[in-house]
Amino acid sequence: MSRQQRQALDEMLRHGPLDLGGEVAQQRALFHEMMTSIPLPPDVKTTEGELGGVPVVTVETPTTDPASVLLYLHGGAYVIGSAADAAGLAAEVSRRTGARAVCVDYRLAPEHPFPAAVDDALAVYRALLDDGIPSSAIAFVGESAGGGLVAATLVAAKDAGLPQPASAAVFSPWADLTVSGDSATSKTAVDASLTPEGLRTRARDYLRDTDPTTPHASPVFADLTGLAPLFIQVGSYEVLLDDAVRLAARAAEHDVHVELQVWPEVPHVFQAFAALLDEGAAALDAAGAFIRARWADGADTSGE
Amino acid sequence: MSRQQRQALDEMLRHGPLDLGGEVAQQRALFHEMMTSIPLPPDVKTTEGELGGVPVVTVETPTTDPASVLLYLHGGAYVIGSAADAAGLAAEVSRRTGARAVCVDYRLAPEHPFPAAVDDALAVYRALLDDGIPSSAIAFVGESAGGGLVAATLVAAKDAGLPQPASAAVFSPWADLTVSGDSATSKTAVDASLTPEGLRTRARDYLRDTDPTTPHASPVFADLTGLAPLFIQVGSYEVLLDDAVRLAARAAEHDVHVELQVWPEVPHVFQAFAALLDEGAAALDAAGAFIRARWADGADTSGE
Repeated sequence: MSRQQRQALDEMLRHGPLDLGGEVAQQRALFHEMMTSIPLPPDVKTTEGELGGVPVVTVETPTTDPASVLLYLHGGAYVIGSAADAAGLAAEVSRRTGARAVCVDYRLAPEHPFPAAVDDALAVYRALLDDGIPSSAIAFVGESAGGGLVAATLVAAKDAGLPQPASAAVFSPWADLTVSGDSATSKTAVDASLTPEGLRTRARDYLRDTDPTTPHASPVFADLTGLAPLFIQVGSYEVLLDDAVRLAARAAEHDVHVELQVWPEVPHVFQAFAALLDEGAAALDAAGAFIRARWADGADTSGE
Repeated sequence: MSRQQRQALDEMLRHGPLDLGGEVAQQRALFHEMMTSIPLPPDVKTTEGELGGVPVVTVETPTTDPASVLLYLHGGAYVIGSAADAAGLAAEVSRRTGARAVCVDYRLAPEHPFPAAVDDALAVYRALLDDGIPSSAIAFVGESAGGGLVAATLVAAKDAGLPQPASAAVFSPWADLTVSGDSATSKTAVDASLTPEGLRTRARDYLRDTDPTTPHASPVFADLTGLAPLFIQVGSYEVLLDDAVRLAARAAEHDVHVELQVWPEVPHVFQAFAALLDEGAAALDAAGAFIRARWADGADTSGE
């Protein structure tokens, strides 16, 4: 855990061209460039396809066991990002869990506002179940907006009468579209990636006239009772710190098994920078261990 | 994780004679009887002694490595409990970390009010350091009031200019002596062990005229900046649930490495019931792994 690594990454992010609140087409191109600037490792295989009518990119590594699946939801504030952009990080989670990652190309705002993203994520989950994959062999994973979308999709699955997956792991989830956590002000100076203003701009794109406290948009306001075991990681240098903390607090209040890990002085979705930052790989290892342990628990919990 | 186990434990706790808010001498005797009703495993060795002028009980198992030490702070709402009462649980942590546990017989209220407990815990820590044990080979561990006292002692150590230990692990910490968390009302019906009234009675015994928001009494109100990595476990069926959640939130806000695990539908300090409850042993394993990993990190963090 090197201070030098953290400072170099902070500089890189602060001087990068990405501006979350900026013009949509330009930010999509910049985000794509940033996320794909490091080529995928040669042992990672990606396959484009469709599940439940939704485009997906399936990411596999040589250790992938066909029995289990990660339903992976990318970040980008509901407006930018894509399944292909997330392949690098999804591959790292895949590698640590032995499961292929099905990255969902859910429809983006402003063209497709709420609840398009939730509908698409749920459609892919339903298609996996319809294909005969047991819910106990599926884990949901997501970063940033994709992390909030993971929690929203767990709630939507419950509301639709579907079984919960074995577990869910989220990295720096955006779980409150009112952008009202204390860290939205207390952490602005140290967050090198996101601003509350940028988040509010993208929340308006996604929500249009929907109340931002709607549970399927902002799961910190949802009834989380009955949700799958939930693993949450966040950096302490994030305006979204409180989204992670409040999601954990809400899950705890509602008797969900929840684990929260706060990594000090690291930025938004620091796991994506595992090549530059020791904490990234260590955090991914912990997330992988959580997901694997819940699969191992399967027999126990079904016998409750 | 058996529902039957949880229900049996709940019944046992609800019908037990312990009443946290009851007459002090009687409750001390009942607590001692409960905590020592299961004999220590034959491989556990306890030795009475003194460190820094404070009585201690050192707990060892055959796997104990003399290089590392747990400073262990027992529970009992600052009024009941003893180092000897905690030997069983301390031995289980010792077993999982390879370190002997030095259980501190800090002075109890109402005879010895705040800050006697903090003074005694700090005196033992100082004595360990003076004996030449590096701070990086020490972890603080505590349950219930002892968990709050762990956090308070970390803050007191910082304020005294002492180095932080390698890590700290707390089980169901009582960290807010104002007893004002949401769970103090929302979880009363499901908490089989503690009541807000009982906690308030004991807080008055401990605090006398001290403001209950005093940071060394209620670390949820303290400046936690610079504290050692902190591992927090709590059951979701606890009036103290929010103490754990808010301690984690405060540590996160202050850039401390913190991990919070919330275990659903289990009672206060469920780790003490590992013989009756599968979750107990699993939680102890996780706490042990956290402490061991921080010792392993030692070289890294000192090189920051």
